[in-house]
Amino acid sequence: MSKNKGDAPNGKMSKDTEFNLVQVKNTWVRKTGGLNAHSHVSEAKIYESATGHGVSWTVVSPIYFSYKVVESQNLLDPHNDTLLTGHIRDPQELEHIKRSTKPVKRFIVIDETVNKLYGSEVIAYFEARNVIYKILPLPTTEENKSMELVMRILDEIHRFGLDRRTEPIIAVGGGVCLDIVGLAASLYRRRTPYIRVPTTLLSYIDASVGAKTGVNFAKCKNKLGSYIPPAAAFLDRSFIQTVPRRHISNGLAEMLKMALMKHKDLFEMLDSHGRFLLDSKFQSSNGLLDHRNAATMTTRIAIETMLEELAPNLWEDDLDRLVDFGHLISPELEMKVLPALLHGEAVNIDMAFMVYVSNERGLLTLGERNRIIECMRKLELPVWHKDFNLSLVKKSLRERLKHSGGLMRMPLPVGLGQAEIFNDTSDDVLDRAFKKWCDDLSTEYTDSGHK
Amino acid sequence: MSKNKGDAPNGKMSKDTEFNLVQVKNTWVRKTGGLNAHSHVSEAKIYESATGHGVSWTVVSPIYFSYKVVESQNLLDPHNDTLLTGHIRDPQELEHIKRSTKPVKRFIVIDETVNKLYGSEVIAYFEARNVIYKILPLPTTEENKSMELVMRILDEIHRFGLDRRTEPIIAVGGGVCLDIVGLAASLYRRRTPYIRVPTTLLSYIDASVGAKTGVNFAKCKNKLGSYIPPAAAFLDRSFIQTVPRRHISNGLAEMLKMALMKHKDLFEMLDSHGRFLLDSKFQSSNGLLDHRNAATMTTRIAIETMLEELAPNLWEDDLDRLVDFGHLISPELEMKVLPALLHGEAVNIDMAFMVYVSNERGLLTLGERNRIIECMRKLELPVWHKDFNLSLVKKSLRERLKHSGGLMRMPLPVGLGQAEIFNDTSDDVLDRAFKKWCDDLSTEYTDSGHK
Repeated sequence: MSKNKGDAPNGKMSKDTEFNLVQVKNTWVRKTGGLNAHSHVSEAKIYESATGHGVSWTVVSPIYFSYKVVESQNLLDPHNDTLLTGHIRDPQELEHIKRSTKPVKRFIVIDETVNKLYGSEVIAYFEARNVIYKILPLPTTEENKSMELVMRILDEIHRFGLDRRTEPIIAVGGGVCLDIVGLAASLYRRRTPYIRVPTTLLSYIDASVGAKTGVNFAKCKNKLGSYIPPAAAFLDRSFIQTVPRRHISNGLAEMLKMALMKHKDLFEMLDSHGRFLLDSKFQSSNGLLDHRNAATMTTRIAIETMLEELAPNLWEDDLDRLVDFGHLISPELEMKVLPALLHGEAVNIDMAFMVYVSNERGLLTLGERNRIIECMRKLELPVWHKDFNLSLVKKSLRERLKHSGGLMRMPLPVGLGQAEIFNDTSDDVLDRAFKKWCDDLSTEYTDSGHK
Repeated sequence: MSKNKGDAPNGKMSKDTEFNLVQVKNTWVRKTGGLNAHSHVSEAKIYESATGHGVSWTVVSPIYFSYKVVESQNLLDPHNDTLLTGHIRDPQELEHIKRSTKPVKRFIVIDETVNKLYGSEVIAYFEARNVIYKILPLPTTEENKSMELVMRILDEIHRFGLDRRTEPIIAVGGGVCLDIVGLAASLYRRRTPYIRVPTTLLSYIDASVGAKTGVNFAKCKNKLGSYIPPAAAFLDRSFIQTVPRRHISNGLAEMLKMALMKHKDLFEMLDSHGRFLLDSKFQSSNGLLDHRNAATMTTRIAIETMLEELAPNLWEDDLDRLVDFGHLISPELEMKVLPALLHGEAVNIDMAFMVYVSNERGLLTLGERNRIIECMRKLELPVWHKDFNLSLVKKSLRERLKHSGGLMRMPLPVGLGQAEIFNDTSDDVLDRAFKKWCDDLSTEYTDSGHK
């Protein structure tokens, strides 16, 4: 059981005795009442009470997770230290490592496709830095996102040998790669630090920012996983220049999500500069004056808004999550049509439907609704899919009810760049919204579900 | 990265801007400086700084883990609610559940041997309580403690279907069973609550008390796992009456560890009542007046001292751990001779050797050393093993150096019931201690390593 809702924890029940834990030499000792000012007191507490059957103890212990998300340029330039030491926060530790003569070891998992594009640069980097390294290229696709791949990584890590305190595992690739490696690292010796280097727009603004790791299981998306943040995520936008246009749209969908949920300016930017960002692949250097900062600004705002929502709810104990927008129906859709839709595409179809729901509930005007759909089109994202049918909607929402404490917790936009969470969307509203959504948008699509 | 050393976290570096996170409706917003007293402020913080390459964000977010360890009697009596609701701490939630008409569902993993002894009682309990249940008996031995068994559990859990908020998975068995189920639960939907019901003395005072889960991997003990505590551990000492005598000794070894490290009274009790505890299998009802409270007292002290050490260091971020006593060489020994030695037996052999090291270093008198060895004999624990040789000792300590930040961190008793952690035990001392240990104790053992 865990929580981090911003409230101080109060483990104390009526008849409990509260114990602090005080360090005395190498031992921890329970103490009630007043503490010496010089005592080394843990934040953990033990509560004890007598029951009819004996003693009951309750342990409450906070674990502080911390991680860095760092914008970097020329990450693979051998003069750039970031990849090797950018995760270290303590200046003393950094000094110590820089002075150390101990050889540096790194295990790198890289997506196969990324390896074809950047493998030689990665090798050149570690060679130039005299690192003892092992690079493991893997086909990290959604279809392969399984425990088998995690076990394969673990086998190789074990064979290579790592100091789990000081030699973080490095993942280079898209979201699937970062998720799989994150899970392997979180399992190895119960937790080995890892570093995320996203190479797609989607993983740059999404997987890199949070604590989640995972693999698919029994045809369900991310059914197995953990909440262990990386030591650091290093963001080098230059990787995005080799990302296919469709995959950039894919990433824009998650940016649009944050825009719709909480940042009107981001929405305006995506609306004005979306096409340019697609054309320029987020490489600001080749931008016109008018668009020049769009790549920097939009990615930064997407990350900042995401961090705002994730940091207070790192383990997702609070079930009311704006970042769930577009993620209520889309996981079922994505797995059902795999590999037809990319993650962001499935999310966008879900969002497009939800925008109709918002309008149907009177939360968005017709003008706002249409403007959002129009923006999605500019970002070259699908806004409808034949397999996104009413029975899928109802089934997904029933599942959600089961797993979110009996409430729907449906994030919906209430105007541009604002949202609230609703538990009372009726079947009637869903039916009407679905009909309008299909009437308006299905005609653009062929039977195969494509434009 | 995580820590819980009792210090408040300070993520702030010199040029960082510190942001609090304030909840406004459903959104979290970053704020610097003074906060409104009515604000809902998260304990999480975001630090931002500019680098030559852009922005660097650092997230620091505490997660509060809490779990109960509950002494209970007649756990399988249908009148006892503990197994179904004993993990719930919030009285309101408990009220709500008791009033609910929703059918209760539970998935139970039980060790095969335990199932033969108690399976019908377990079934009778869930039948009498009208629970929708699935019982999965598994051969949870050290040899089977693998990811394959975890995946098998996950398959069955998924088929059964669980609400991961309200339907904890129940593990009934020894330490291996509790560890495997804990890992499966911590992976399922990134964390599903689970309950530990230990049925051996060892798991009663050891696995039940902490947060660790795990499986063996690549012939290494507990190489894969997580630090996710159960929602609760329910301790019913009556299970121990069916535990074979040798396995009770096995548990006594971990109790003796806590006694030697930090509780002289516990040592005295084990020394005086150890034989009685073995004979009576910790069932105090059949005790003589003199021994009457020994079972209650010794188990309770073992748990309290263990909780004291584990609560402030739940994720083992502090590498200086008294509870590591007996665990520096024994994992290698245990895996090497598997299944010849039980876990506690391997630990005891390690402790017996370390007691000689302590004496050799002048930390224990000859009298104390001999008294401890004598107590181990009374507990019917092995104090020597032919495969525990000097090369195993040196290899294990080299491994430890690698994985504990370059320091040995060797817990050693310094008198009865007191200990310190040492980084400077020389090879010379190890050699001399080893020789004396063999000279004194090896003669009792046959070539096969048994008495």
